[in-house]
Amino acid sequence: MTAPWSLRVRPFTLELRHRFTIATSSRTTTPTLLVELERDGVIGFGEAAMPPYLGESHATAQAFLARIDLARYPDPFLTAAILADVDALAPGNPAAKAAFDIALHDWLGKVMRQPWHRVLGLDPRRAPPTSFTIGIHPPDVVQRIVAEAGARFASFKIKLGGEHDREMIRSIREVSSLPLRVDVNQGWRDRHAALQQIEWLATQGVELVEQPLPKENVDDLAWLCARSPLPIVGDAGVQRLADVPRAVGVYHGINVKLMKCTGLREARTMLELARALGLRSMLGCMTETSCAISAAAQLSPLADWTDLDGALLVANDPFVGATLVDGRIVPSASPGIGAAVRT
Amino acid sequence: MTAPWSLRVRPFTLELRHRFTIATSSRTTTPTLLVELERDGVIGFGEAAMPPYLGESHATAQAFLARIDLARYPDPFLTAAILADVDALAPGNPAAKAAFDIALHDWLGKVMRQPWHRVLGLDPRRAPPTSFTIGIHPPDVVQRIVAEAGARFASFKIKLGGEHDREMIRSIREVSSLPLRVDVNQGWRDRHAALQQIEWLATQGVELVEQPLPKENVDDLAWLCARSPLPIVGDAGVQRLADVPRAVGVYHGINVKLMKCTGLREARTMLELARALGLRSMLGCMTETSCAISAAAQLSPLADWTDLDGALLVANDPFVGATLVDGRIVPSASPGIGAAVRT
Repeated sequence: MTAPWSLRVRPFTLELRHRFTIATSSRTTTPTLLVELERDGVIGFGEAAMPPYLGESHATAQAFLARIDLARYPDPFLTAAILADVDALAPGNPAAKAAFDIALHDWLGKVMRQPWHRVLGLDPRRAPPTSFTIGIHPPDVVQRIVAEAGARFASFKIKLGGEHDREMIRSIREVSSLPLRVDVNQGWRDRHAALQQIEWLATQGVELVEQPLPKENVDDLAWLCARSPLPIVGDAGVQRLADVPRAVGVYHGINVKLMKCTGLREARTMLELARALGLRSMLGCMTETSCAISAAAQLSPLADWTDLDGALLVANDPFVGATLVDGRIVPSASPGIGAAVRT
Repeated sequence: MTAPWSLRVRPFTLELRHRFTIATSSRTTTPTLLVELERDGVIGFGEAAMPPYLGESHATAQAFLARIDLARYPDPFLTAAILADVDALAPGNPAAKAAFDIALHDWLGKVMRQPWHRVLGLDPRRAPPTSFTIGIHPPDVVQRIVAEAGARFASFKIKLGGEHDREMIRSIREVSSLPLRVDVNQGWRDRHAALQQIEWLATQGVELVEQPLPKENVDDLAWLCARSPLPIVGDAGVQRLADVPRAVGVYHGINVKLMKCTGLREARTMLELARALGLRSMLGCMTETSCAISAAAQLSPLADWTDLDGALLVANDPFVGATLVDGRIVPSASPGIGAAVRT
């Protein structure tokens, strides 16, 4: 038999408003794969956003999604079994898996006629404000971006780990007094130097530090976690659900991203598990369209911090959905993930 | 303003098919409170089943539910906030809180036109078979009950902690070779004697031992957990979500009951947390009607073991819903919790 539903994929290249430079890489575009899961006249939208340094690509995501045999899943509501099955098709491929998870959830929410935040009983008004991310730039560029972003955000996320970390912070402090979040992207190496830097950052209105050391340096991270005056948040070091219990004592919090953890189903469990284990949580994103951001925004009331500015960094967003309201990324009231094709 | 919905409660006394005797108490009835939450012409059913030794009663449950100000909750879909709010009204009262949680979920599922197992993406066919519980009786009575239960169940749960534990097991073994689960209800005192007993039970086709020692004896339980040839499952020692991380190293698994943990929302998180922490999980129950059992059955695919025979022990069940199919308690296909008033 042929499956009563179809899966369509479209490679798409996101153009970034600003060149995006972090400790480990620099780029002006992000490849993403847009997915449509259709059945009974209902279309679920999904997306796989794939920053090159994470190893997935249009080719790998298309190849993975082509392996999903939809005919094996006559009942779309059996998501636990379906998504476990898809996850087991091949290791890795988290963004491709997330694209399918998001599209399936969008389809299910539309059939139930509810946005997922309502299905999950969450209040979007309780979502934490998002930070706005600023890559590594010369001071004058950073100041211009901060000025542009202006009063729309409650905090900025600064990418450090470059040559001029303190200069970067000082140049921002010349033009803004907003709370700052620092993301080192594993860019530091020495734990003592890292602690010194964090102690200084604590005097500069910084509220947290993300992945200061390489994820492999677990002992150094635990040492830092025991001493840091600021919360240390794991990003590269915390990918999937199984990583959450291991994060206790190594990080104070975790950064959950749909593109790392294979989608909404696992992300929700990770956020609830983190809270139960006394870890703080950030709901983050890649540079992605309003499709994946709208999906993530469904879960934001489960997080202590959100960093869902991904679509705001994109110049050619093909979707509308979650919007920035009073510093928060608020999902639309539409069913499913609440995203629609931009017309 | 008055709330657009109403909450009705009805005290009800469950008559048990057999006198129910465990290590700590004996009775022929169980008080339960039946709840109806009505809004927009949709009625959600809930129940608070209250074995006397747990401290709740018709009076305490009615008094607690009377404190819920429904006018404060104009949007029933904001369950996370509503249930946190209700939980904070007073400490304890887990069964009364569960009655409200179950009724609210039933109402929401009916509005979404889906049974909760589908909303949660779970496959009822993956539910583990239930055990059938046998209280402490003279050998001839035990043998009669086992014979009556016959081939309908995949395992029996035996209440030990009395005078004649081994005699009890031997008398069952004369008439049945089914796997047995042993529930001591904190009835043993000495850890060395407990280990000896468990080592003997392991030779008698017993698959797990529930709460062998008092919940306060955490060190003894951890000692036993490190040595027992059979999985040790915490029941009295694991009530709420916060107890789950503490169960690691003290128990091999946890028994999750709606009446202990305030309902479906927290039970689901406890089951997922247990799995993530490497704990095994049992979804259990009190003697309760097919209302609360049908609610619990929505979650059974999340558990490693189920013990959902509560309604089968009741002679005057006012509801129909989940039914025993091939040894499993399978939820109905009806929306919400899938329970209906018996006509």
